[in-house]
Amino acid sequence: MEFSSKLIEKAVNEMSQLPGIGKRTALRLVLHLLKQPKEQTGFLAQAIVTMREDIKYCESCHNISDSILCEICANKNRNHQIICIVEDIRDVMAIENTGQFRGIYHVLGGKISPIDGVGPSQLNITTLVEKVKSGSVNEIIFALSSTMEGDTTNFYIYKQIGESEIIISTIARGISVGDELEFADEVTLGRSILHRVPFEKAFKNN
Amino acid sequence: MEFSSKLIEKAVNEMSQLPGIGKRTALRLVLHLLKQPKEQTGFLAQAIVTMREDIKYCESCHNISDSILCEICANKNRNHQIICIVEDIRDVMAIENTGQFRGIYHVLGGKISPIDGVGPSQLNITTLVEKVKSGSVNEIIFALSSTMEGDTTNFYIYKQIGESEIIISTIARGISVGDELEFADEVTLGRSILHRVPFEKAFKNN
Ligand SMILES: [Zn+2]
Ligand SMILES: [Zn+2]
Repeated sequence: MEFSSKLIEKAVNEMSQLPGIGKRTALRLVLHLLKQPKEQTGFLAQAIVTMREDIKYCESCHNISDSILCEICANKNRNHQIICIVEDIRDVMAIENTGQFRGIYHVLGGKISPIDGVGPSQLNITTLVEKVKSGSVNEIIFALSSTMEGDTTNFYIYKQIGESEIIISTIARGISVGDELEFADEVTLGRSILHRVPFEKAFKNN
Repeated sequence: MEFSSKLIEKAVNEMSQLPGIGKRTALRLVLHLLKQPKEQTGFLAQAIVTMREDIKYCESCHNISDSILCEICANKNRNHQIICIVEDIRDVMAIENTGQFRGIYHVLGGKISPIDGVGPSQLNITTLVEKVKSGSVNEIIFALSSTMEGDTTNFYIYKQIGESEIIISTIARGISVGDELEFADEVTLGRSILHRVPFEKAFKNN
């Protein structure tokens, strides 16, 4: 792509470093900004710089937070003995939206992925293991995506925890509520059958 | 969407003002930035602010340019008597990529669109009409998108120019090269037939 202006070229190049934003999309965004008042671009730039510079993470669960403890960890009405292990803040938001979980979280910050150069030391695993070993935890729930990386990460943490009396579970996999069986993939359908739920229990949760 | 941090919320809100970027996408971009070195975010912010603050437009054709005249207008080897009228800089780039046009451009900066509150006075129409009336132009080619707004804009300019001896043309519409006829929409196919080209001429251009 040849640009008639170095300024445009630079802005497009920076924008297109973002995931899922190609050069064409970046150019469209840049041309949009050019049509907006100058302040608008200033607000956008300021918001991302301030966010990046001042962001804090909860000392306990590593969720993104504006204070030392996030609102969930600081909430005494939540059950601090049940920890749901997730990959990132989006998962926390998704599970919170269900209204079905009253425990706390532990945000790993990613999954073990040798291909992407992510090893256990780059994730928030040590603090989780310490927490479990301190004896204050009853149950941990693995809620990572069911990919090879997710499974590897689950298993690594499982081994790190070693012998212990806590309950270790993973979230249930199955056919999405409202989905037609015939369109489900085999693996998911298989798991749905293997991990079938007593009818009365499923009925009550509806 | 509820965020665990005001900083994240603000950055997501600003990002999601961009066209085609919803809150979910904005959050994904923000989380990506958090994983990059701080400088990276600084570069991005700086590039868009500098671009917005320092951007210049060619005095002659209104193309985005780093100097008073854009490279195309400053090029004496181009035919300055043929003007191709386009909506924005992306169209200039697209036509330049074809290598088929050796005239100059006139960038309107949009189309007349009452629904979006864009009237003729917000577009670069006056300078075009002046240029044509000065007598230095032989031909103008309308290369706006063939929508109602595009047609309205073409017609408005056509009427502004009034009686004149210059050639006025619009780019040809038709089936894309390589496309199967059966999948083309009726209007395009109809125009292809109406504006059919002598075989020898079409053959030479291949
Ligand atoms: Zn927390
Ligand atoms: Zn120019």
